[in-house]
Amino acid sequence: MTATAVDLHPPTTRSAATRERALPDSAATPVTVAHGDGIGPEIMEATLRVLSAAGARLAPEPIDVGARMYAAGHTSGIADDAWDSLRRTRVLLKAPISTPAGGGYKSLNVTIRKTLGLHANVRPCASYAPFVPTRHPGMDVVIVRENEEDLYAGIEHRQTDEVYQCLKLITRPGCERIVRHAFEYARSHGRRKVTCMVKDNIMKMTDGLFYAVFEEIGAEYPDIERERYIVDIGAARLATRPEQFDVIVTPNLYGDILSDIAAELAGSVGLAGSANVGEHVAMFEAIHGSAPDLAGKGVANPSGLLLSAVMMLVHLRQGRVAERIHNAWLRTLEDGIHTADVKGPHTRRTVGTEYFARAVIERLGESPRTLRPVTYRDVAPRRPTSGAGNYQRRPAARKAMVGVDVFVHEAHASPELLAERLRRLRPPGLSLQMITNRGVKVWPNGLPETFCTDHWRCRFVTAQADGTIGHDSIIELLARLAHADVDVIKTETLCTFDGERGYALGQGQ
Amino acid sequence: MTATAVDLHPPTTRSAATRERALPDSAATPVTVAHGDGIGPEIMEATLRVLSAAGARLAPEPIDVGARMYAAGHTSGIADDAWDSLRRTRVLLKAPISTPAGGGYKSLNVTIRKTLGLHANVRPCASYAPFVPTRHPGMDVVIVRENEEDLYAGIEHRQTDEVYQCLKLITRPGCERIVRHAFEYARSHGRRKVTCMVKDNIMKMTDGLFYAVFEEIGAEYPDIERERYIVDIGAARLATRPEQFDVIVTPNLYGDILSDIAAELAGSVGLAGSANVGEHVAMFEAIHGSAPDLAGKGVANPSGLLLSAVMMLVHLRQGRVAERIHNAWLRTLEDGIHTADVKGPHTRRTVGTEYFARAVIERLGESPRTLRPVTYRDVAPRRPTSGAGNYQRRPAARKAMVGVDVFVHEAHASPELLAERLRRLRPPGLSLQMITNRGVKVWPNGLPETFCTDHWRCRFVTAQADGTIGHDSIIELLARLAHADVDVIKTETLCTFDGERGYALGQGQ
Repeated sequence: MTATAVDLHPPTTRSAATRERALPDSAATPVTVAHGDGIGPEIMEATLRVLSAAGARLAPEPIDVGARMYAAGHTSGIADDAWDSLRRTRVLLKAPISTPAGGGYKSLNVTIRKTLGLHANVRPCASYAPFVPTRHPGMDVVIVRENEEDLYAGIEHRQTDEVYQCLKLITRPGCERIVRHAFEYARSHGRRKVTCMVKDNIMKMTDGLFYAVFEEIGAEYPDIERERYIVDIGAARLATRPEQFDVIVTPNLYGDILSDIAAELAGSVGLAGSANVGEHVAMFEAIHGSAPDLAGKGVANPSGLLLSAVMMLVHLRQGRVAERIHNAWLRTLEDGIHTADVKGPHTRRTVGTEYFARAVIERLGESPRTLRPVTYRDVAPRRPTSGAGNYQRRPAARKAMVGVDVFVHEAHASPELLAERLRRLRPPGLSLQMITNRGVKVWPNGLPETFCTDHWRCRFVTAQADGTIGHDSIIELLARLAHADVDVIKTETLCTFDGERGYALGQGQ
Repeated sequence: MTATAVDLHPPTTRSAATRERALPDSAATPVTVAHGDGIGPEIMEATLRVLSAAGARLAPEPIDVGARMYAAGHTSGIADDAWDSLRRTRVLLKAPISTPAGGGYKSLNVTIRKTLGLHANVRPCASYAPFVPTRHPGMDVVIVRENEEDLYAGIEHRQTDEVYQCLKLITRPGCERIVRHAFEYARSHGRRKVTCMVKDNIMKMTDGLFYAVFEEIGAEYPDIERERYIVDIGAARLATRPEQFDVIVTPNLYGDILSDIAAELAGSVGLAGSANVGEHVAMFEAIHGSAPDLAGKGVANPSGLLLSAVMMLVHLRQGRVAERIHNAWLRTLEDGIHTADVKGPHTRRTVGTEYFARAVIERLGESPRTLRPVTYRDVAPRRPTSGAGNYQRRPAARKAMVGVDVFVHEAHASPELLAERLRRLRPPGLSLQMITNRGVKVWPNGLPETFCTDHWRCRFVTAQADGTIGHDSIIELLARLAHADVDVIKTETLCTFDGERGYALGQGQ
């Protein structure tokens, strides 16, 4: 594509001019707006113009984030007064930013997400066949991804010369909030099915919790179908038959992978918006980057940010305005007015950012004729995400400690010798039940084929049947091990909760 | 498709008869063979017939695994004498089996893999356009997946009322062996590129180790191009442009997802074989299941198992025989002789299991004309997988303990109050550095927006700059906490290795 093939500057038509309305300041909702880097300012300007023309009742408060703030020495790309605006408005519409390469800089997105507890990532991925080329016509899936916990809590330790560990944390409030978010989203957006993707055949406790909560909360929504996939097969199915899915709810890591698959399949990374929603604040942004090579040329596609703004309007209970914009945008695609990134056989005119925005504005009030029109109500979904309001902590379970896993760094042990040594050292009241290496039982009755690292998990349990132990037993055990120069690198207590085992058995146990 | 449309019983042609050769018993390699359940016996019989006709020098030892063994009370679906055969032959060709539904049964595959240390899963996924319908002509990717560690070590603990944990373990020997396997595979199979897929922008230590080892070992193979993808983008790219990839090496969980995506994309789950290779034993099997609904009808596609057998022959240094079979099989596809599962516009005759095997036998010695013929040499790849032989444990690093993360179960704490309490309780020599909740720093200088579970990670570090601590300090800390009824659920020591920090900082630290 050459620049000359793109219509950058549209003629102002009377139709567009009359459709633009002044922003009704009286009822305007303050929203924080970040123009970002690269193509950010251009697509933000186009988006705000459409919002204004459509009658969105917004009072944008611009903040400066990204490259300039990084350069000014803010390692997270954001200054204190920007946080203040965010806390006040509780809503951020954000254009893409550039995180500088090299060490010492932190991702602004991760910082905002973690700091403000944006626990739900919502990413609709639709194809717009035949108007935008795609291999998957009929695809219209929304990925609802848990956004705070799982392996992304970032708790990592090097434990021995050979072994590194990362903690995967899955919590009941985390599961409850994201699952409820997914079902509320489905209900308020007229969707019929929520699919849970987990690997609970392997991770029976962590992913098992996620799935149990899915069934538990899903039962409160009898109008919505529930479906479950093991994530490997689910990802494969999504990659080949995405039109089978409606709403997908999944933990953080799987969601990261699945949402990138979905966006790329739809053939429209430039068309997808997303929401990051928390109890206090919500952030709306396109899923694409700042594309510095396109910056300043006026050719970028504002659609991802525009659809993010549509999600923001729904969040702010301005559903009718959202609907006007979304339908006018669909009509623009149908009419073949396309930016260069989605050019295809149905393109009638390849246009720039400003022209495209103007074309959407001209179509405000119109609906698509082939694609399905959207409907949003002025009522926001019941606030499913207000954690404190929605998550009810249950009464504590009856917890009883029955043992402890002690992890030992030892390069030269054989399982038999290590076991013999540990059995000599254990205090009365505890017995050594097993030793595993990378999860495989190597004592008792290990197999000579098992490859062993320098990292041993040694399970001590109460010596009496149905007995319990106290922290003092563990401390005595640790003291004896320390005295004998056994290098303990970590412990995990073994507990029952209301009589139910709170730990997995060893493989082969 | 109706049964009558399938040619089940081929006429015996002279050509096929003359091409079958007697098995040369003198040089035969013993291999253990499991006929499995469902369609297993049919496709195994067809596969063995082709192997024999092609002159494979094999002495099959049948063992009984699967449904009958489960029914006989073997919870892992395998009896002791079968283990004996496996240990003797060190090679297993396995048809699919059925694991009974319901509790108490263990997956035979997981048992074999873990027990015998089959650390490398190798899964080639190719499309055979235009002869087999696929959206991705030109796809020919091999996924080399680490098979023993990562989250699949199965170490899970419920730690509090609200929080469950699974350990992700990544080890240097695990990384070295799988990465070397991938590069050796690439070199011996004439492949040009190995792509590493990890999430090391988030998991800097665990996935960071995997990637570091990839670079380290990959440098020994200057003839092979190295490439790296973050797994979310990599999975999306694989799902949309699989023909860009050659060999992919990746940890266990990602590999599980990526290999299912690749198999499904190729449009040929019924055509894909796989190898599970360890230091002592290797297992070869189709990737599909036992399809009980098709059992006994003579219509199943034996190709997945046949291509697994081809991989086995290469492993056994019978590359020329493997080549004869693989090329004859490609020619059969080209000739439009297809089982019903791959029926498409290029199908000239839809045939059953036996007929298909016979068609392959008839074409032994022929090569495909459109598809690319394969070449295997009679020399097996240098045994990259002999862990003991290949993995050289390095000298131990200088390890120094500088602190400890103590995890506390506490439902009613505020970060400030908890910190105050812990600071009062800490022994001399240790200071409280921070508290995080699900990885987010909540003390000092936490934010009121951060949602907190009942699971607190409290980091204590040596009170002197550059100081170290001993196990006695940790034990004293634990004793003081126990005395004050602080419910410690786990500990992780903080160490440096050769002066380098062996633990991640808290988010916001």
